[in-house]
Amino acid sequence: MSNKIRIGLLGTGRIGQVHAASISESKDAELTWVADVFLEGAEKTAAQYGGKATDDPAKLFASGEVDAVVIASPTATHVDLIDAAIDAGVHVLCEKPIDLDINRVDALRAKANSAKTQIALGFNRRFDPQFAEINQRVAAGDIGALEQLTIISRDPAPAPQAYIAVSGGIFRDMTIHDFDMARFFVPEITQVFATGSNLFSDYIKAENDYDSAIVVLTGSKGEQIVITNSRHASYGYDQRLEAFGSLGTLYANNVAPTTVIHQTEHFVESRRPYQNFFLERYAQAYRAELAAFIQGIHEGKVMNPTFEDGRAALILADAATESARTGKPVSVNLAK
Amino acid sequence: MSNKIRIGLLGTGRIGQVHAASISESKDAELTWVADVFLEGAEKTAAQYGGKATDDPAKLFASGEVDAVVIASPTATHVDLIDAAIDAGVHVLCEKPIDLDINRVDALRAKANSAKTQIALGFNRRFDPQFAEINQRVAAGDIGALEQLTIISRDPAPAPQAYIAVSGGIFRDMTIHDFDMARFFVPEITQVFATGSNLFSDYIKAENDYDSAIVVLTGSKGEQIVITNSRHASYGYDQRLEAFGSLGTLYANNVAPTTVIHQTEHFVESRRPYQNFFLERYAQAYRAELAAFIQGIHEGKVMNPTFEDGRAALILADAATESARTGKPVSVNLAK
Amino acid sequence: MSNKIRIGLLGTGRIGQVHAASISESKDAELTWVADVFLEGAEKTAAQYGGKATDDPAKLFASGEVDAVVIASPTATHVDLIDAAIDAGVHVLCEKPIDLDINRVDALRAKANSAKTQIALGFNRRFDPQFAEINQRVAAGDIGALEQLTIISRDPAPAPQAYIAVSGGIFRDMTIHDFDMARFFVPEITQVFATGSNLFSDYIKAENDYDSAIVVLTGSKGEQIVITNSRHASYGYDQRLEAFGSLGTLYANNVAPTTVIHQTEHFVESRRPYQNFFLERYAQAYRAELAAFIQGIHEGKVMNPTFEDGRAALILADAATESARTGKPVSVNLAK
Amino acid sequence: MSNKIRIGLLGTGRIGQVHAASISESKDAELTWVADVFLEGAEKTAAQYGGKATDDPAKLFASGEVDAVVIASPTATHVDLIDAAIDAGVHVLCEKPIDLDINRVDALRAKANSAKTQIALGFNRRFDPQFAEINQRVAAGDIGALEQLTIISRDPAPAPQAYIAVSGGIFRDMTIHDFDMARFFVPEITQVFATGSNLFSDYIKAENDYDSAIVVLTGSKGEQIVITNSRHASYGYDQRLEAFGSLGTLYANNVAPTTVIHQTEHFVESRRPYQNFFLERYAQAYRAELAAFIQGIHEGKVMNPTFEDGRAALILADAATESARTGKPVSVNLAK
Repeated sequence: MSNKIRIGLLGTGRIGQVHAASISESKDAELTWVADVFLEGAEKTAAQYGGKATDDPAKLFASGEVDAVVIASPTATHVDLIDAAIDAGVHVLCEKPIDLDINRVDALRAKANSAKTQIALGFNRRFDPQFAEINQRVAAGDIGALEQLTIISRDPAPAPQAYIAVSGGIFRDMTIHDFDMARFFVPEITQVFATGSNLFSDYIKAENDYDSAIVVLTGSKGEQIVITNSRHASYGYDQRLEAFGSLGTLYANNVAPTTVIHQTEHFVESRRPYQNFFLERYAQAYRAELAAFIQGIHEGKVMNPTFEDGRAALILADAATESARTGKPVSVNLAK
Repeated sequence: MSNKIRIGLLGTGRIGQVHAASISESKDAELTWVADVFLEGAEKTAAQYGGKATDDPAKLFASGEVDAVVIASPTATHVDLIDAAIDAGVHVLCEKPIDLDINRVDALRAKANSAKTQIALGFNRRFDPQFAEINQRVAAGDIGALEQLTIISRDPAPAPQAYIAVSGGIFRDMTIHDFDMARFFVPEITQVFATGSNLFSDYIKAENDYDSAIVVLTGSKGEQIVITNSRHASYGYDQRLEAFGSLGTLYANNVAPTTVIHQTEHFVESRRPYQNFFLERYAQAYRAELAAFIQGIHEGKVMNPTFEDGRAALILADAATESARTGKPVSVNLAK
Repeated sequence: MSNKIRIGLLGTGRIGQVHAASISESKDAELTWVADVFLEGAEKTAAQYGGKATDDPAKLFASGEVDAVVIASPTATHVDLIDAAIDAGVHVLCEKPIDLDINRVDALRAKANSAKTQIALGFNRRFDPQFAEINQRVAAGDIGALEQLTIISRDPAPAPQAYIAVSGGIFRDMTIHDFDMARFFVPEITQVFATGSNLFSDYIKAENDYDSAIVVLTGSKGEQIVITNSRHASYGYDQRLEAFGSLGTLYANNVAPTTVIHQTEHFVESRRPYQNFFLERYAQAYRAELAAFIQGIHEGKVMNPTFEDGRAALILADAATESARTGKPVSVNLAK
Repeated sequence: MSNKIRIGLLGTGRIGQVHAASISESKDAELTWVADVFLEGAEKTAAQYGGKATDDPAKLFASGEVDAVVIASPTATHVDLIDAAIDAGVHVLCEKPIDLDINRVDALRAKANSAKTQIALGFNRRFDPQFAEINQRVAAGDIGALEQLTIISRDPAPAPQAYIAVSGGIFRDMTIHDFDMARFFVPEITQVFATGSNLFSDYIKAENDYDSAIVVLTGSKGEQIVITNSRHASYGYDQRLEAFGSLGTLYANNVAPTTVIHQTEHFVESRRPYQNFFLERYAQAYRAELAAFIQGIHEGKVMNPTFEDGRAALILADAATESARTGKPVSVNLAK
């Protein structure tokens, strides 16, 4: 292994661009290969950030020039690419979700868990400075025993209908981040109750999906977790978290784009709205995620969420989907 | 009826004292009678705030010297006292809940709803300036259509075991205020899901009750409401509400005891904790509640929550209790 | 002296009404006489809050029915009324300023300081809960040694021209409150530098007065105090104070009319403006001021700002007026 | 000129490192030469960020390999280096101040102002996102006419005595940034009043300098500006600005290191302190400053503060120094 981790990027869409930029900015990594079924995308990205371009991931794996891959291709390709990466003996940082089908995930599970290379999952929010700080402070005892966790997560506006149609539903596509966030604080979840509503989007309803959702999770020690989701928020990307414990709370409000406060005869303490979306909101988190992955490779231990974390989030998403449809809570056993 | 509403107070405990003080401060009311089975309590209150004292409510009703009563006696006496007040032709402001047994409530229902005098329920939080402002602004369209309502309600510390033992459980005793608050915004609730946990209090567990609870309510238009309760909060009485709609949010944070901010080498923006409890937090609300009651008597229309509101809250509490015990959501029909 | 302090009110204008209401609400005081050269005003106030009405202060003093007077009449009458009160052996709570002419103040000084009754000055802001809290916490050492004090004080809108014409100028009329607030924290002031500007009001300029002012005071230990004044503020009454010391700061922001925060696509964290003026902003302070005065009478010691405090504020106002006119700092010796 | 601006760095101390890093991160610039009288410093910096190292600035200028220089060497060298840069036909971004002696500045003034290359001054705070936003919004009319400007600027802790001894005094060393910030909003200043105090540092007093200062500036339209400085602040680097105008205010509070709020039984809304100093607080500003400089070179027009701005700030600092010593305001004419 060279001093710099040689990284192959699989997929050059929106999120692939984020990773390409992070890799090129990292002093500890270099982009050596870029693969995309649309060769033009691969070539353009390689031209900008370095590396060789191909439309065939197999060439990338066979090159002997990648120590690790970042998988940012469509969800349906993830399982096969992780599989191929294991065979090629390269480390993996795979975007969430592993797959929309738990059976496909389980089919790869044993191989993934016994792989000699790292299989990391791209739950970037664990690396958000605010949420990471709260997690560390909860672990340090700043609020005593964690009792209740409140997660509010609303997108600025719904994805287009074509995206919704193949998304796997709000719980697998959107809430899955919140499920992982819940497990960041309370790894062992035993029960899922979910409700969905159709409050504003006709086309989401037409896709038999919900635009608004509430999920209540129960931890193995009785911890109570509430997730509130909406596919829209007029004031921008709404990402808040509050950890309540026996000795106090730790609360992360939205990250304002400015500290500047405006006061007029109409209002006081007014700030500009949180209009950014995840690429801006979690820019630091994406960089920290990659840094942890690289550090993990160097130190030989997993710093990032793992394949098991990816599987657990999907199980919770499936359980939520079932709960919302049946109206009943669903028991889960993530360790099984 | 004299120009000032002549009020008889039934019950002189902690909450009775609040009402006695409000009545004595009101320019539109006077305290003419005070009844308590502990005569000493009645006499002491009468000496301080005015009126005649008795240990027999019947004397109060028979005096012809009360236009209205405020019922602040133990819950078990509420139904009989409302009944007697209707017979005596006097208006009623009754502390919540009407009763812990829905059957007793239903037995009085027809009579209460056809009474010629007002039967108002003491859900004081509707009169809190912050919550009332949000309610008015939602009605005025400031956030468009209401979609999600988040209520966080935590007491500073649990009531003693003797109180818990006869409280009817967290949903009937504590959450009942939040159920009414939910209905302040979304009157028609169709489903209740509740979970309870025992996270910190052995004696609450010993009473077969929960110290922590999450309730998810669904409105008839699909509105989603989450209530988060805890019987303790190290930083004081935690009373927050957020109304989320298609055009924005309206959020009421806790009312800080001071605007003074302290900055040191250890922290910035630090304020003193919210150490007060409901008597202090809702002091304005109690006065406004009484004022609305008096105004309602003068104008001949009900300004306060009604008997039906009291019944609806109890139905929701019963449904939550059942849901938490069975693990299943419970459908409700409040209009039936 | 009866158990309740019997108070005579002199002057029934806007500020007189505030005091009349405070007296009537106090359990420890009663309004026994009301004097105003406009008899109708006196009669109306007496009818509402109690007491006998007169247009002749002498009758009030001669009645033997007042233990104390609250002087809320025009400034030019203050000195004579304090003088008369001392002769009558009654306590005095006099609105600021004592007079606009330091010579008239000094002529009364010896008599006032040797009076056997209390002579309190109505610098109500010392009793504002926020400012009082900061003062107590500074005294308690929460910020170590006080080094710099920042006072921002802006009125919502300028007083009418007729008022400005007889006000004595911005420093004697408006800043005088801030001079006293400065002395609440740093009693010994040794130097005054002031600048005035005419930035928005033609009629204030026509009266040879300033609409905007900055004053820098120096304390005897080198403490630095900055006062920023404006006769207008679009967002309402702007009253802020920050005490900076060796160990930290204590900061009192404006008191918002609500904690409700509104978020839309146009802004986040927006609150309604601080539209109230001093009667609303300092309502608690006026009541606390009267309570301190009554307590001081009962305990035989002065709790309120004194005649000397009133004199000191006027000396600082005179020095500021001179400094602004000459462009030079003015040394003062308040103890002389 | 190559596509990338070739930059020579003069001086490799703390601030030189900041610029070296910014240059290396810029896509539009490259570091081609590094000069420092301590050759080791130049070599180390060149090794890390690129370029050739020398201990002789003349070699750098003679190389023909620099399009622009960043001057980050000791203040006393600035004038000669700007002079040499003009002769060499290269652009200049010079750290503040130009010099501590206005005569040396004036001696270079005509040449600097007629130079064909850009002479930019490193007043980085103009590029702080918060202050830049307020400046743009004031220009856009968000607060109407600017009337009063409040600048609070406190360092976390005083520089060591050796630094203070050669700093030129608090007004030339520290306040000079605030003078430029004042002129960012109100370019034409006509009067300066300053006071200094010795409140906590014996060694600053021993150097005949102040540890605390207040400055009042008057603009040509009567605008009032107050600057409050302290050489220490227990809670960290204190950098605030408020622009008050006829229609409202715009306020930039300190930039908190986190949005995480902690609540316990001891406090609510507590955040970690602002412990960073200028390198962290203004990291974005330094990068934006360099970007503006490069853009200015490409577009052939000056985007940054100019030599005249640097001169004006020094004139204000001199005037403040005189004012504090004499106790009198000092009139200035920056245009002369």
